Amino acid sequence: MTYQLYYWDGLQGRGEFVRLALEEARADYVEVARGDEQDGLGTAAMIGVMDSRTEPYPPFAPPFLRDGDLIVSQTANILFYLGPKLNLAPQVESLRYVGNGLQLTIADVVTEAHDTHHPLASGMYYEEQKEAAKIRATDFIDHRIPKFMRYFERVLKQNPAGDGHMVGDTLTYVDLSMFQLIDGLHYAFPRAMKHFGQHYPRLAALHDAVLKRPNIAAYLASGRRLSYNETGIFRHYPELDKDAR
Amino acid sequence: MTYQLYYWDGLQGRGEFVRLALEEARADYVEVARGDEQDGLGTAAMIGVMDSRTEPYPPFAPPFLRDGDLIVSQTANILFYLGPKLNLAPQVESLRYVGNGLQLTIADVVTEAHDTHHPLASGMYYEEQKEAAKIRATDFIDHRIPKFMRYFERVLKQNPAGDGHMVGDTLTYVDLSMFQLIDGLHYAFPRAMKHFGQHYPRLAALHDAVLKRPNIAAYLASGRRLSYNETGIFRHYPELDKDAR
Repeated sequence: MTYQLYYWDGLQGRGEFVRLALEEARADYVEVARGDEQDGLGTAAMIGVMDSRTEPYPPFAPPFLRDGDLIVSQTANILFYLGPKLNLAPQVESLRYVGNGLQLTIADVVTEAHDTHHPLASGMYYEEQKEAAKIRATDFIDHRIPKFMRYFERVLKQNPAGDGHMVGDTLTYVDLSMFQLIDGLHYAFPRAMKHFGQHYPRLAALHDAVLKRPNIAAYLASGRRLSYNETGIFRHYPELDKDAR
Repeated sequence: MTYQLYYWDGLQGRGEFVRLALEEARADYVEVARGDEQDGLGTAAMIGVMDSRTEPYPPFAPPFLRDGDLIVSQTANILFYLGPKLNLAPQVESLRYVGNGLQLTIADVVTEAHDTHHPLASGMYYEEQKEAAKIRATDFIDHRIPKFMRYFERVLKQNPAGDGHMVGDTLTYVDLSMFQLIDGLHYAFPRAMKHFGQHYPRLAALHDAVLKRPNIAAYLASGRRLSYNETGIFRHYPELDKDAR
């Protein structure tokens, strides 16, 4: 069965967290919005699902995933659904809720990273809210990144199954998402992240371990991996970056 | 088995979404932070769990739930976990992912409602970010509430099992959370929400139906339901409210 992944074309965004899981598992999937209109794909096809007046449970926004008749929306929910099918969830059922809790905490950081460049309104241009963005980004670098990263580092340290994984003793989608979060922050805030590895050695090691996984390395080197850019979640605006305190 | 619910004392906040499910099901639960220090409860006991250096998978923030040895964190995750146990989840398994997707979309609105009074930094006082709050609240009222509520109204309308529930044909925790979201917005933005029922009749009917459920009505009349106040998510600052366009 081919999964159909729906996400905006041209940016990594929240879709990337799902892509990394599909790619690590070498799952069969189609990127609907990046496909050809002639094949019934493309952005219009994606918006058609969102705007459908007949779909039983339409999604609010991308990313969403179609698996047969079922549409699953919201990044963490898609991963919770896919995890066991892709062999990227903890085997122990109770740990799946631990994984989902961690994934949702990663999602909170992602939202806050987005809001560094759009603190006032997602519908306004960055240029219209630059001054507010500077205040929010400074707070994010000085307070929020350290608070979240100290926590995630402690999760690794206290994992009874060892500090190589966020939950349990095997690779899960949470590890892949943690990689993407750290990677995106490095792109957006290189000055703030300069000494990341010194402060959070376990997280840095996890990031590097994911980077070296053959399927991930192959994906990152492929044309399927879009570059970071200033339309996504993680945007590099030098004026918002600063040294960490 | 008694569930232990951990959430800040003195405010409804995100804990309220969990409370409503526990109360509707008349589940046996203890509010840890609202308990007595002499009984090993209270806010310090809650923070002790968060700061624990021995807990296998510590939570980042309240609300979290302890069920035996397992700690489940993040509001939507707690409800996903509790739903089937409290008979408040869809019976059909695939619909549980639909419910979780809707719950996470509700959670997104909750975060945006919070950010109307804290657009620049959650660690700064509202008074320090009043001007930015006004811009963000205006955008929330003019664009975000309508966008989300049009969507949720459409979910009710297109629910193949009827427009009385968000998912499936029985009451789920998603209905209870939808009630709380609408109720909180009425408290925070009475002017903006004045004609809510005219624009979103199915959502208004759902809100009123939940309000009349005997266990919910008993809970809301009890001392266990805290009043809305200006330390929670939904805050009434008249200067942020305005008529809907």
